[in-house]
Amino acid sequence: MPRGYGIADTKNWTDFKVYDFELKKETDDDVEVAITHCGVCGSDVHTISGGWGPLSHDFCIPGHEIVGTATKVGKNVKGIKVGDRVGVGAQVDSCGECVPCKDEEEQYCQGNEKSGKGLVDTYNANHHCGTPAQGGYSTTIRTQQQFVFPIPDGIKSEHAAPMLCGGLTLFSPLIRNGAGPGKRVGIVGIGGLGHFGVMFAHALGAEVVAISHSPRKKEDALKMGAKEFVSTGENPKWAEEYKSKPFDLIINTASSNAVDLASILSTLKVHGRLICVGMPEDVFKVRIQNFAGNGCLMGSSHIGSKKEALQMLALAAEKNIQPWVEVLPMKDCSKAVKRVEDNDIRYRFVLEQDIEEN
Amino acid sequence: MPRGYGIADTKNWTDFKVYDFELKKETDDDVEVAITHCGVCGSDVHTISGGWGPLSHDFCIPGHEIVGTATKVGKNVKGIKVGDRVGVGAQVDSCGECVPCKDEEEQYCQGNEKSGKGLVDTYNANHHCGTPAQGGYSTTIRTQQQFVFPIPDGIKSEHAAPMLCGGLTLFSPLIRNGAGPGKRVGIVGIGGLGHFGVMFAHALGAEVVAISHSPRKKEDALKMGAKEFVSTGENPKWAEEYKSKPFDLIINTASSNAVDLASILSTLKVHGRLICVGMPEDVFKVRIQNFAGNGCLMGSSHIGSKKEALQMLALAAEKNIQPWVEVLPMKDCSKAVKRVEDNDIRYRFVLEQDIEEN
Repeated sequence: MPRGYGIADTKNWTDFKVYDFELKKETDDDVEVAITHCGVCGSDVHTISGGWGPLSHDFCIPGHEIVGTATKVGKNVKGIKVGDRVGVGAQVDSCGECVPCKDEEEQYCQGNEKSGKGLVDTYNANHHCGTPAQGGYSTTIRTQQQFVFPIPDGIKSEHAAPMLCGGLTLFSPLIRNGAGPGKRVGIVGIGGLGHFGVMFAHALGAEVVAISHSPRKKEDALKMGAKEFVSTGENPKWAEEYKSKPFDLIINTASSNAVDLASILSTLKVHGRLICVGMPEDVFKVRIQNFAGNGCLMGSSHIGSKKEALQMLALAAEKNIQPWVEVLPMKDCSKAVKRVEDNDIRYRFVLEQDIEEN
Repeated sequence: MPRGYGIADTKNWTDFKVYDFELKKETDDDVEVAITHCGVCGSDVHTISGGWGPLSHDFCIPGHEIVGTATKVGKNVKGIKVGDRVGVGAQVDSCGECVPCKDEEEQYCQGNEKSGKGLVDTYNANHHCGTPAQGGYSTTIRTQQQFVFPIPDGIKSEHAAPMLCGGLTLFSPLIRNGAGPGKRVGIVGIGGLGHFGVMFAHALGAEVVAISHSPRKKEDALKMGAKEFVSTGENPKWAEEYKSKPFDLIINTASSNAVDLASILSTLKVHGRLICVGMPEDVFKVRIQNFAGNGCLMGSSHIGSKKEALQMLALAAEKNIQPWVEVLPMKDCSKAVKRVEDNDIRYRFVLEQDIEEN
């Protein structure tokens, strides 16, 4: 039986225990994966600590940056065979029937009222069959083929894993908002998400400015491909300076609302865009007037589609993009989530398998 | 000497007195206009009542929806001659040197540090020469030709006037965000701005839904061209219903933050846009999570360019678009601003000239 490291109580969110669990009901569209690696994402911490609300089930096995080996492949599955190295990200199902699903925008699935089907997160959710969905700090996952991505040979598993949520969360808004040659792109927050932002925006050919509250990560950001580095703490008037070299696009990865949105918005070109991919637990406050002077836009983005995941993996293989990771055995997941909460990681943890099915 | 109705104290913002004032220093690029009509805009109330901050000078003559006759035309002026009927909107100058100015986006002028020149609002501002800029509740305005728009013969002056700020404020975001055949456009708030939104979006070929807090304006909105009307007060769960018939674009004209942004955002298509053109005096509060489910964007917009003003006036002439106006003599400006503040107007006031230069 599949097993994994789970949390039963959001008050004791570092107190992982090993739980047996059931996979979703098998269908001909599913791929079953023996997990070898799983990245640790900020979402894991938000979820198990209750920051995004209560847990949906008795226990929650987090983890949605999963890499492993396909061990069973349904007869309708295309492009994946037993033995292939594959990945699963932050989503494991969608209704398949709504406009976004039909447009290959399954990450924006709006659900289908008649069938009752909708978007299914990788954990802390229910599969369409009703089985609780459990994540990748575990031995095994079974999921619908649309959410299983073949991993190119050129990418190590510990590098592929954190791309599948963290990487894709940056890659999708970068390509949808035109990051490329001739464009200036700002990345706010140089953490687990931001470091992907700098690397991918640079790889796509944009001119990248890393924007962080302190100068501590300057050297790292320049190594990742940033052309300039702004320490907003050391230079509180940075936005004044950047109005004369404004941005086409800024991706804000901060997961708190401490960032000064008004300053950030003021550095955008006319109709420039700020896309916020960090998901703070509280509301933000901003004045509409801050959007009027340059007619700028602010929005968010939800992971990415399979199409984009494959495009990202191909780019990573082609350009040899390597996330900065620290690899731990899976039993150290408690240590890992605690250090993520403390911002004590440069820049992603990856857990390596150390348990077996029961 | 030019004269106009002005306010000296934001605490007594309906206490208009007639003031003499000076025009800007004359240049070869200027047009001087004998004012016949001036619309009353919500901005007038926000400004004279201090809602957007203190007054810049001893007195403020509001009004930035100006129509009149060109009485003097500088030798560099193109396309306007003495005797022409012309209009002036909410902006009377820009630096002319920045990227937006050179791109015919003068309403997004970023200013020029060297010359010290920047965007000049029609009133409660300073002309580049240093003279206080005074608005259209007055006999006369002199301004730079880029901000003077010839009015087509087919449009009455009392209809043209309110288009020059209110109309353009809706027209610009509609055309910039693709309102047209096959698109669903929501207009939130059926007031002075919203009524232009419904008429222009309909004229551009979009399917328009008017969204108001009460059912009182339903009949009006349908006459203006709305296909559907939503009363959010009567149907608090309207957003649930509209998720299945979502919007490409919503323009929010509400000038308070009482509207439920989260509900509005949930009715947008994937990457749909909410453009807020009302300018509430306070901050709004919203969660980034409300933008993630459909990857939507929110922004604002600042009036429109001359190019767009001419396009709007041509459309209005072609389709015989008539704003719903109540015409008063200019001396009744006090009554007009008070009734705008009380939302007691369907849908725009226009003041008719009743004083002469001193």
